[in-house]
Amino acid sequence: MPEFLRRLPPPDAMALWLSNIQFLLTSEEIDTTLALDRVSSNPILAPHPLPPFSRSSVDGFALMAADTYGASDSLPAYLEISGEVMMGREPEIILHPSQSAIIHTGGMLPPGADAVVMVEHTQMVSTDEVEVLKPVAYGENILKIGEDVGQGEEIIPAGVFLRPQEIGGLMALGLTRVQVVRKPRVGIISTGDEVIAPEAHIGPGQVRDINSYSLSALVEEAGGIANRYGIVPDAETALREIVAEALKVNEIVVITAGSSASVRDLTSQVINNIGEPGVLVHGVNVRPGKPTILAACYDSTVGINKAVIGLPGNPVSALVIARMFIVPLIEKWLRVNRSFFFDHIKARLTINLPSQAGREDLIPVRIKLKNGLPEAEPIFGKSNLIFGLVRADGLLRVPPDATGLSVGETVDVIVF
Amino acid sequence: MPEFLRRLPPPDAMALWLSNIQFLLTSEEIDTTLALDRVSSNPILAPHPLPPFSRSSVDGFALMAADTYGASDSLPAYLEISGEVMMGREPEIILHPSQSAIIHTGGMLPPGADAVVMVEHTQMVSTDEVEVLKPVAYGENILKIGEDVGQGEEIIPAGVFLRPQEIGGLMALGLTRVQVVRKPRVGIISTGDEVIAPEAHIGPGQVRDINSYSLSALVEEAGGIANRYGIVPDAETALREIVAEALKVNEIVVITAGSSASVRDLTSQVINNIGEPGVLVHGVNVRPGKPTILAACYDSTVGINKAVIGLPGNPVSALVIARMFIVPLIEKWLRVNRSFFFDHIKARLTINLPSQAGREDLIPVRIKLKNGLPEAEPIFGKSNLIFGLVRADGLLRVPPDATGLSVGETVDVIVF
Repeated sequence: MPEFLRRLPPPDAMALWLSNIQFLLTSEEIDTTLALDRVSSNPILAPHPLPPFSRSSVDGFALMAADTYGASDSLPAYLEISGEVMMGREPEIILHPSQSAIIHTGGMLPPGADAVVMVEHTQMVSTDEVEVLKPVAYGENILKIGEDVGQGEEIIPAGVFLRPQEIGGLMALGLTRVQVVRKPRVGIISTGDEVIAPEAHIGPGQVRDINSYSLSALVEEAGGIANRYGIVPDAETALREIVAEALKVNEIVVITAGSSASVRDLTSQVINNIGEPGVLVHGVNVRPGKPTILAACYDSTVGINKAVIGLPGNPVSALVIARMFIVPLIEKWLRVNRSFFFDHIKARLTINLPSQAGREDLIPVRIKLKNGLPEAEPIFGKSNLIFGLVRADGLLRVPPDATGLSVGETVDVIVF
Repeated sequence: MPEFLRRLPPPDAMALWLSNIQFLLTSEEIDTTLALDRVSSNPILAPHPLPPFSRSSVDGFALMAADTYGASDSLPAYLEISGEVMMGREPEIILHPSQSAIIHTGGMLPPGADAVVMVEHTQMVSTDEVEVLKPVAYGENILKIGEDVGQGEEIIPAGVFLRPQEIGGLMALGLTRVQVVRKPRVGIISTGDEVIAPEAHIGPGQVRDINSYSLSALVEEAGGIANRYGIVPDAETALREIVAEALKVNEIVVITAGSSASVRDLTSQVINNIGEPGVLVHGVNVRPGKPTILAACYDSTVGINKAVIGLPGNPVSALVIARMFIVPLIEKWLRVNRSFFFDHIKARLTINLPSQAGREDLIPVRIKLKNGLPEAEPIFGKSNLIFGLVRADGLLRVPPDATGLSVGETVDVIVF
C-alpha cells in the first residue's frame, strides 16, 4: 500500500495507526513479590473474605453490648473477666451475659461477644472483674468478617498497574502468584552510515548511537522490553533483513532512520516491502518529529498486523516522538488506561511563545517554583540537541489551533 | 535516651529524626544501559565537545556564505559542485570561493565551508554546477562544534534521577559506565504472634503478613533495596536479635509492630536497648499512624547513627507512614531532591471534610475527571482496610491547622 496521507495532525495519525494494528492479550503468572509495576491481565477476585473472622480494632474487653447500656463513671457496669484472647489463636472462651474477655487489637472476637470496649473506658477491679465506664454500641470497635472485601469480590480489575498496596492486598489473601500482562517486546534498530556504537572510538564525521539507548530506557520505563538490534548501514538489503527478523520476535519495531531525506525514503521503502498494509502515515504535523513514519506490517506467524514506526534520526525528535506514539502504544498493549493527569503538571508560562498555527509544537521546559507555584520556562536552542532535553523537566504542548501562548497562561506540561 | 517527646506534628518529627541520623555517600559504577532511575553520585562532565565537529543540520550544499550574497530566483549564484560529503567520513573536499559540496543532514562540514544552503533553495544546473536561489548567512544551517555541550561542561549534576534523555546524553559522549549512588538497604521486620507468611495455611485468629511485602514494594519504588527478615514473634529476645542483625547490613530498619499497646512498647524497648540515641519520637500527630516510632541507633561498625522506624501493624497506617517518612529518607540517602509537584495533583474536593484541628489527616481519595478537571473523592471506611488504599489514587492531606476542608476547594493529592 502506498503512502496515502502526508503530514497528519498527531491525533489523526495515532488513530489511523491504531486502527491498523492488532493487539494480542497474552499473560503470564509471576510471583506477587515481583509484580510491582506490572499490569493485572484479569480481574482478580477474593478467594475468601477479609478479615476472615471478626476482629477487635482496639485494645480492651470483648463483651455483649447489652451489658453496658447506661454505664457511666458514676454507675459502671460490672463484668466478670472470663479470660484473655490470645493473638493468632481461636479463643477458647465463650461469653455469656455479664462476662467479658481481655482482647488486643487484631484479636479474634470470642463467640458470644458482639462489641469491644476500649481499655481507656474501663477500670480493673480485680483480675476477675472489670468496671465498664461507658456504654458500647452493638458492633462497636469490631472489624467484621468481610468488611474489607467479601468472598468473590473483585479486588483488582484487569489493566491496573500494581502498586505497593495491590501487592499487600494480594498477600493479605494468600495470592502469592498473580496473572499479569506479558510485557510487549520492542525491537529497536538504529540506522546511519555515520552512526557508531557508544563504546567505539569516534572518528571524524561519526556520531555515537544515542537512540538505541534512550529509546530502550523509555520503552522499559513505559513497561515494555527493549531488544536492541544495533546499527544497520543505510542499505536496503541489510535493513530489510533486520527489520524482518525484528518483526518476528517483537510486537513493535522501531527504526530510527538516518536524518537525510534519501535515508528516510529507504526506511519507508523497506517497510512497504516487508508486509501489508505498510506505511500509513509519512509525516506528522508536529515539531520536532515531522518526518515520522507510522506503519503496520502483517506477521503471518501470528496472523496479526504489528506496529512499525520510523523515527527521525535526531535524538530529540526520536525521543519526543517515541514519548508521543510508542508509550501510548505500549500502554494499549498492556491494556492500561493511564490517566492523563498523572504525568501532567499545570504550570504558569514565563514568556510569550509564538507558534505556527496548524502545527503542534512540543517545547522542552524547565519547571521552577515561584511563590510556591510551578512555572514553565521554555528551553531554547536547536531542536536536535540531546542536552536540551536533559536540562528539561517536561514538554510543553502548544496545540495546533493556537498561534502561540501568552506569558502567564496556565499550560499543561507532560512530565518527561 | 528515654522518649522525650510525644505526638509531634509530622514535620517536627521528621526534622528531629533527620537531625539524629547520619548519611554516608557511597557510590558504585554501573553500565549506563542499566542506569535508568538510578541517581548520579557526582557531577558528570563532558569528556569532549558535542557535536565533536561542525555538522550540517539540513540536506543541501555546503558553501561560503559570501558567495550567496544577493542571490535570488531571478539572479541566482552559480557555484561549482566539488563533490559530495559522505556520511560518517572526514570530507576529502576543501572548498574554495565559488565552490560547493553536496552535504546531508548530519554530514561533517568540509574545510572552507561556513554555511549550508537547503536543497529546496537550489537548482542543479549539471552534475558540476548548482544555482543558489537565496542568500545564506554565515553559520546558517550548521551545528557548531560544542553547540550542544562544550568540553568539560557539566552535563548532569549530582543527585539526578537518570531518565531516558540522560542515558542518551551519556552515550552520545561515549560514557558507557556511570557512577551512581548505591541504593540504600532497608531491612523490614514484621512482628506479631498472629501474623503468618502469605503462603501458609491460615487458621482461626491468624492474619497474613501484608506489611513485609507492601513496604518492600514501596522501598523499591522509591529507589531502595528491601531486605525482608520475615515474621518475628512478640518476644523481646527474638526481636532484639533480629533488629541488631538488620541494623548491621541495612541503612534503615523498619519494624512493623503488632498493633496492641503492649507490643508497641516492646518495639520501643528493643530499640532503646540496641543503641543510642534510641527512640526519638513516640507518637506522631497524624491519622492514620499515630503510634509511629522514630528512632536512631548507633552502629559502631560504620560509626554512624542509622535510622530505625517502628510502624503501626495495621497495613494502611504502615504504608501511609512509610510513604510519609521512609520515602523521603531514601531520597535523602540518594541525595536527590525530588520536586514536590511531581507527585502531587491539584484537584477539586467533592465533599465537605471535617477534621480535628491540631492533627494532620491523610485521607485516601479517588481522582476522577469531571468536565476535564480532576476531582478528589474521599474513600471512606475504616482506616485499617488495605483495600481502601487499593481503591485510592492518592492521599489527600488535611493540614493540622485546618478544622476541615470545604467542597469545591482545590486540594493537593499525593499520588500514591
